Amino acid sequence: MREVVIKALLVDPSNNSPVVLLKDRDSRKALPIWIGDSEAISIAFGLQSEDFPRPLTHVLMKEMVENLDAKIDKVIIKDYQDSVYFASVYVRDSHGDVMEFDARPSDSLALSLRSGCQIFVADEVFDSEAIESPFAEEDEFHEFVEDDLNLGEFRRWREEVTEREHDSEDA
Amino acid sequence: MREVVIKALLVDPSNNSPVVLLKDRDSRKALPIWIGDSEAISIAFGLQSEDFPRPLTHVLMKEMVENLDAKIDKVIIKDYQDSVYFASVYVRDSHGDVMEFDARPSDSLALSLRSGCQIFVADEVFDSEAIESPFAEEDEFHEFVEDDLNLGEFRRWREEVTEREHDSEDA
Repeated sequence: MREVVIKALLVDPSNNSPVVLLKDRDSRKALPIWIGDSEAISIAFGLQSEDFPRPLTHVLMKEMVENLDAKIDKVIIKDYQDSVYFASVYVRDSHGDVMEFDARPSDSLALSLRSGCQIFVADEVFDSEAIESPFAEEDEFHEFVEDDLNLGEFRRWREEVTEREHDSEDA
Repeated sequence: MREVVIKALLVDPSNNSPVVLLKDRDSRKALPIWIGDSEAISIAFGLQSEDFPRPLTHVLMKEMVENLDAKIDKVIIKDYQDSVYFASVYVRDSHGDVMEFDARPSDSLALSLRSGCQIFVADEVFDSEAIESPFAEEDEFHEFVEDDLNLGEFRRWREEVTEREHDSEDA
């Protein structure tokens, strides 16, 4: 098992779907996980530490868990079968007991951003599904994520991809 | 305050957005609440008592609350300001204490379907925002919801509306 961090939120132009890149500290590889639009918005706001005007779903979930004297302990991407990732969210209650919840990676990642908990990936999953970072240099990757990833960019990407799709449909 | 039930999940053709109709037992009026696509899918599966292959967000939220010895007690649509509805979700813990969480109506309604809890609307909100039921007869309304509302229909509506939009853009 290895710890990863969310290094980028991109849009896959082949299917117009948001992708999260999970980067291992000790390698140049990243694990791409395709997610839904609403989870992407939640993750984008979480990455920017911005608040949405009204409580987003994962903020509400975290509030409920914490008000019940528990906390999100960690999330693990545990398995990959037939193009589907399987994750677990671990919740620690007030007695220190830890419960495991079967979850989709998108919910798990959105919760980890809200709660600040660690994200782990099973070695078998990372070894078989991780790809070379799309950035030639680690610095370039870092710069891209630190400086350029913001909500405005994210929205612009989505609009551009949508426009391209419309154009190709009209052609 | 009055109790309402989710009577229909439709698509508003003017903006291609899913709408939930909340119907009061004692009147012909219904309160329309516009929601996002992912919440609509969650509500559609909840209305059909169908399970999604992987845990949907609100199923995960309900599981966490119940495993922490608490339950979703009720939800209330409390206010409407500048075209935004405000709701609260009430959670009862193992000591019987009830906590209130500020929430969007879409999360509140999706949670109520999963937990089976009651939905209430503040009288001021219902009186000012409810519309006449789009169905001439109560029987017609009932028949539509009971017999015709299913996921296939929902998906077909969305596709039709999307096609119409594309057609009008091309025109």
